[in-house]
Amino acid sequence: MTDRPSRVDSAALVSLVGAGPGDPELLTWRAIQRLQMADLVLYDGLVPRPVLQLAAQARHVSVARRAGDKVLTQGDVNDQMIAAARRGERVVRLKAGDPFVLGRGGEEALALAAAGVPFEIVPGVSSAVAAPALAGIPVTHRGMASGVLIVSGHDESAFAPALRSLAPHSVTLVVLMGFKMRESLRDVLIASGWRSITPVAVVVNASRPMQRTWIGTLETLDAASPVIEDDEPAAIIIGEVVTLATALDIATPLASEDTTWQPMTTPRL
Amino acid sequence: MTDRPSRVDSAALVSLVGAGPGDPELLTWRAIQRLQMADLVLYDGLVPRPVLQLAAQARHVSVARRAGDKVLTQGDVNDQMIAAARRGERVVRLKAGDPFVLGRGGEEALALAAAGVPFEIVPGVSSAVAAPALAGIPVTHRGMASGVLIVSGHDESAFAPALRSLAPHSVTLVVLMGFKMRESLRDVLIASGWRSITPVAVVVNASRPMQRTWIGTLETLDAASPVIEDDEPAAIIIGEVVTLATALDIATPLASEDTTWQPMTTPRL
Repeated sequence: MTDRPSRVDSAALVSLVGAGPGDPELLTWRAIQRLQMADLVLYDGLVPRPVLQLAAQARHVSVARRAGDKVLTQGDVNDQMIAAARRGERVVRLKAGDPFVLGRGGEEALALAAAGVPFEIVPGVSSAVAAPALAGIPVTHRGMASGVLIVSGHDESAFAPALRSLAPHSVTLVVLMGFKMRESLRDVLIASGWRSITPVAVVVNASRPMQRTWIGTLETLDAASPVIEDDEPAAIIIGEVVTLATALDIATPLASEDTTWQPMTTPRL
Repeated sequence: MTDRPSRVDSAALVSLVGAGPGDPELLTWRAIQRLQMADLVLYDGLVPRPVLQLAAQARHVSVARRAGDKVLTQGDVNDQMIAAARRGERVVRLKAGDPFVLGRGGEEALALAAAGVPFEIVPGVSSAVAAPALAGIPVTHRGMASGVLIVSGHDESAFAPALRSLAPHSVTLVVLMGFKMRESLRDVLIASGWRSITPVAVVVNASRPMQRTWIGTLETLDAASPVIEDDEPAAIIIGEVVTLATALDIATPLASEDTTWQPMTTPRL
């Protein structure tokens, strides 16, 4: 694979690249190539340092909003990408997970298209699938779930309309960026007919050294709160498939207290 | 990255590996490593030859069912994985897309766990996200869709319960393995209140040289039929986000005839 000539389309000066859930080994081969050739990398706060180190020759610009930092608006990000591309630089816009799964990659792609800047999409491994998988939970499983609904949990208006209508237990639910909204999430689902004992997992820092999994139920989701920091990425998985984590011996078994934590046991960096 | 020592957990003798949508450049770095070290690779029919060529030292066993071929049952696949692992061989079970997104990876993981064979999951880029992305369609987009429902389309009982209940247009729908069931899919959605003019895309052979995209509406989904072969993987994307393919200039614009095909224009093998 390393012997092949580069297949970069020379016309694609901006690559919107999915960085995967965090572990550099879960980058795609194309993402690695783009990082190694980049002149400028614009990255989100969730992208870990070992991934950025692949872009050794590039200028790195964080677009994360953190207390005290200068805030880079979406307009600033777009302007920087467009200006660099017009100077002939190879730009990587690196996004946690996949650029098009709750990543606002579409907005940036539209800005590039409007400016006439050539770009490409490099899909990545989404945390919505990898976080449960690395905790031993298949989001679909014959006889349990033949589908999965992935929603943003950042506010109730983002998830409530779909969740209020969906037949309870008809598919697995995965909620990203929703840990702060867990009470609202629980209330919406229980009011819509989901059983309060529906199994729930919260997978924090999926694929990273600090990965850990909480297993409980909709009713006990509150109990997960003391052990998750605000800036840690968390995926919430809701449905019968969560019970498979026990059989698959990767995540912690369903404990009688409904609240247990343990570090991941799968290979990782 | 290539200089790093291998991080393979020596206890993990079977790797359930997502091969991504087809393009070898969309394999993860870990998947490439596992293939290069494998003694035995069990692969589905959808995994293309260039991906298999990475496992140059391994025996290759196809588990695909094709007319005339000897049929390898799921039990046969499990038995081969377990027997090889017990001989100390490194086994890669290679699955198109992601092993846990409609890939029956959970069943194989359970069989391995029951046999006491150590295994790991290597998540992959799911076609459910990559197929629309490579056609210029973000499955989520602010103001259009804050979630995506991924379902199997292999029979009506797999998708109808969820789709009949879901509030129309509340999320993007992605249907894998559902092209044969497109009439049933259309009927279920229109009967449930989805507008007949809802934009629909069918992306065939995503990320492969023969990738192409049909764009139409729910009502005209029948018209996509003459140009898709039975053994070509197809993803159906339903929702307002399909209209972005036009603006993103990757897929074909919405044509007045509702039926147009064109080859992909993004970089590929």
